[in-house]
Amino acid sequence: MNFRELSELVARAEFHKFLKLVPVSCDEAAGAVTFELPYDVAYSIFPSVGNYHGGVIASLIDVAGAMACSLVRGHPTPTINLRVDFMQTPRRIDLIATGKVCRIGRSVGVADVEIAGRDGTVYALGRGTFSTVSTEPKLFEKS
Amino acid sequence: MNFRELSELVARAEFHKFLKLVPVSCDEAAGAVTFELPYDVAYSIFPSVGNYHGGVIASLIDVAGAMACSLVRGHPTPTINLRVDFMQTPRRIDLIATGKVCRIGRSVGVADVEIAGRDGTVYALGRGTFSTVSTEPKLFEKS
Amino acid sequence: MNFRELSELVARAEFHKFLKLVPVSCDEAAGAVTFELPYDVAYSIFPSVGNYHGGVIASLIDVAGAMACSLVRGHPTPTINLRVDFMQTPRRIDLIATGKVCRIGRSVGVADVEIAGRDGTVYALGRGTFSTVSTEPKLFEKS
Amino acid sequence: MNFRELSELVARAEFHKFLKLVPVSCDEAAGAVTFELPYDVAYSIFPSVGNYHGGVIASLIDVAGAMACSLVRGHPTPTINLRVDFMQTPRRIDLIATGKVCRIGRSVGVADVEIAGRDGTVYALGRGTFSTVSTEPKLFEKS
Repeated sequence: MNFRELSELVARAEFHKFLKLVPVSCDEAAGAVTFELPYDVAYSIFPSVGNYHGGVIASLIDVAGAMACSLVRGHPTPTINLRVDFMQTPRRIDLIATGKVCRIGRSVGVADVEIAGRDGTVYALGRGTFSTVSTEPKLFEKS
Repeated sequence: MNFRELSELVARAEFHKFLKLVPVSCDEAAGAVTFELPYDVAYSIFPSVGNYHGGVIASLIDVAGAMACSLVRGHPTPTINLRVDFMQTPRRIDLIATGKVCRIGRSVGVADVEIAGRDGTVYALGRGTFSTVSTEPKLFEKS
Repeated sequence: MNFRELSELVARAEFHKFLKLVPVSCDEAAGAVTFELPYDVAYSIFPSVGNYHGGVIASLIDVAGAMACSLVRGHPTPTINLRVDFMQTPRRIDLIATGKVCRIGRSVGVADVEIAGRDGTVYALGRGTFSTVSTEPKLFEKS
Repeated sequence: MNFRELSELVARAEFHKFLKLVPVSCDEAAGAVTFELPYDVAYSIFPSVGNYHGGVIASLIDVAGAMACSLVRGHPTPTINLRVDFMQTPRRIDLIATGKVCRIGRSVGVADVEIAGRDGTVYALGRGTFSTVSTEPKLFEKS
């Protein structure tokens, strides 16, 4: 999957009209992908504070991890499970989500995701297992 | 925290204007809480399929787990970490999220969350650790 | 897999000469299995305190979860990943490990494990993903 | 905590008479620690295969993660929870466990652990949350 295909895949999800993540780069060989999420008050708990809701960060991790595995496999790799560790709450800043494949097997893959600010501060870590079994061409489907 | 306070707390989060979860019931003594999430196409990957995005399910789990612990503690209990297991993808249906405290300690609590349909089919399971340390009255803040 | 087969499978692992878990019951249809681990000072951190080492509890969870899935599948189901939540440290007591299948799919299964004392006090919770793909007959092998 | 203190702390645990991990190095400032686990058939499932039992790997991860946090805090930091991802089963080889602090907070810390062979092959990944609250001087106690 190349950058254009990745971008199209991400653009197709209805939920991403809300979670406006922007593909920044991808490395198919390394199984690495980077997204940017420009700050939007709609992602916050308190608008005045601009603190991100945990669900938004978990969503970013879900997408970045699944996309890292999809890149390598060339087809969607639905999330089987996910661990999210919240380190500190980002406030009013754009986030950078970096997904990286740790292992790709015949039926499952493992990927790590880091959520950071532009200055490199890490706000959350994610690790997930993704289904690498090629199924029907319906993108993102759990099976 | 009683049902009215829980409802107000949930209503205050800006992100919940998108994730329109409805408090259904809560049991302060048992540390149990139930939310309903009426289906909205905005939560889907493909509108025609109506399949929920994993991030929406993870968000539900985050809220239900944190709220179960908050109920018992009487103050917000930010999520420290979360595991989400996706069993199967719900499609075009309302979801019921049930959060239940497993343990409340002085500094951390553990809660389980089940995401099911109205017919009892389980779509996802969550388990998280939440900070039970009472801090400033800023709701939902990670610390 | 019936109780006798389960017992034989558990007895075959070299590591179980140290971790002397005793199969108590199993329900193939429900995907449920119960083991008992009689207290042994060798499992402790401080012999005088008799507090269980976390690794021993994690080991129990690994076995009980994998065995619950194996029961249903009729062949070994290697652990893909595991979450362990330590609630409190058991001391000088026998432990009861109860594994229960949450979902069995074509390539992965999910199982929950509870570690309790004879009086029902819960000391730890486990949740894992297990490979349900039938491979070579080599028991417990990761693949 | 310096290397000598770390070594003494590890040596004190009764369970470590079985799990004979050898402290190799530690960096207090970085919150990094390395252990070696020389292969022993007692850790295996099948002696003839020499495949490590998952519980042994989980135990290694538990210790390396807790020790990384303990190093920085200067006192024991009991494991609150742990995720273990098994990538492939090591066979008849010595293992290197590297623990590294990701974050140290007032009440909890997060650490990552990698389990590899001498040739750098990664066999398992761990991530855990550890209690950084200083309590009684009883080492390793959950609280």
